[in-house]
Amino acid sequence: MSHRFFVEGDTLAPEQCRQIATVLRLAPGAVVTLVRDGVELDYRLDRVGRDEVTGTVVARRPAAGEPRVALTLALPLLRGDRSEEVIEATTQLGVSRFAPYTSARSVVRELSAAKRGRWLRIAREAAETARRGRIPLIDELRDWPALLAALPAPLIVPWEEAREPTLESALREALGRASGPPAPAAPPAPAAPPATVALSLVIGPEGGIAAEEIALARGRGARTVTLGLRTLRAETAAIAAVARAIAALE
Amino acid sequence: MSHRFFVEGDTLAPEQCRQIATVLRLAPGAVVTLVRDGVELDYRLDRVGRDEVTGTVVARRPAAGEPRVALTLALPLLRGDRSEEVIEATTQLGVSRFAPYTSARSVVRELSAAKRGRWLRIAREAAETARRGRIPLIDELRDWPALLAALPAPLIVPWEEAREPTLESALREALGRASGPPAPAAPPAPAAPPATVALSLVIGPEGGIAAEEIALARGRGARTVTLGLRTLRAETAAIAAVARAIAALE
Repeated sequence: MSHRFFVEGDTLAPEQCRQIATVLRLAPGAVVTLVRDGVELDYRLDRVGRDEVTGTVVARRPAAGEPRVALTLALPLLRGDRSEEVIEATTQLGVSRFAPYTSARSVVRELSAAKRGRWLRIAREAAETARRGRIPLIDELRDWPALLAALPAPLIVPWEEAREPTLESALREALGRASGPPAPAAPPAPAAPPATVALSLVIGPEGGIAAEEIALARGRGARTVTLGLRTLRAETAAIAAVARAIAALE
Repeated sequence: MSHRFFVEGDTLAPEQCRQIATVLRLAPGAVVTLVRDGVELDYRLDRVGRDEVTGTVVARRPAAGEPRVALTLALPLLRGDRSEEVIEATTQLGVSRFAPYTSARSVVRELSAAKRGRWLRIAREAAETARRGRIPLIDELRDWPALLAALPAPLIVPWEEAREPTLESALREALGRASGPPAPAAPPAPAAPPATVALSLVIGPEGGIAAEEIALARGRGARTVTLGLRTLRAETAAIAAVARAIAALE
């Protein structure tokens, strides 16, 4: 499999040129993949220098690894490197946008510029590893009311006090998908790719989401769901919920 | 929620006594929960000493947090602390047994006694956090043929070269569950809890599973499945597969 580079425009960034010339040691004639905005370009290298690499686009296709669902993950600031762990795993699984937030019971309350920079780098590398077609966006830090105002509907909130419905039932209700196989008499699916659907998942902080916060979220149409009978740490809940939501929708 | 302690027999271990007396500083009359073999006991403390804590069982019930499926996760030795990350998350999600292994493309090939001890401690703490009724077992290290011989059927192997079926379809086929809601004319479910079902999931190492190894596994009845269109790191694949399998079966 060829090396992949996320680019803006049609040219490689200086650090990508250095990687091609001095780390990967690719020669003219080698083909790498440039990825931009959901499109993959096969790029045959013409000249390889430490500061500039030029080449020719020889093929172009949509990136197969982009999910059909545009999933926004509202992520609390977690202790230690737990947030990084979630960003890495859920970018591989297919999250499109991260919305970091603080709420009443948040333990960590600041997102430094250095930390946000690290998050962006982890998201970029995970998107490359996973062969995604886009790098997820990372929003600025918000408080709970601002978060609720910013998230695309439908909003699904796994909450440890919820006894029902399951994440999958709530998704079926919110997005109107049938649970069983299609009826035999259904017309054939249209040839065009299905339209992208939006979804926001809100994961609570270590201390949980307060009842007043849940009430505010419900007032904005959020649905609380259960992830099962066991108590999950925030980072496990995030990875599990994203894996299940994407599997249900893809 | 009361403090939980996994015990063997009806007595607390010395380090649990020390924790109760000197860390939690509980007084006689306080009630803790002892957990043993899928059963929870409410235990009222009678005497609290640094070396011995005694008490009385005042209630007894099945542990609600134990999953219906007995899931064995075959886990390669991963670099750094990635295996620990998987053990922590998937114990919370409900794995019953870990079967560590090495295969042709494994990078890490030894499981030291110290590392296995650390795994056991992480599994125990994660089972307490998640309010499980049992601590998962951790097998000794095996090679690929010995692993295949030791795993309970059915065996499901997420493999990056598989294009179909999905994990969920393979589970439905292997365990004979219908995908849709039950038919209206179905008889009411029996009052007894449903029988436990067994399932083994095999996650490949960083370098992937070799084609010969897949052939050997298929010869033993294993089914290869896809987890989706994106390339997942081994630890993300493990957590996602366990979350999806338990959600599908519970």
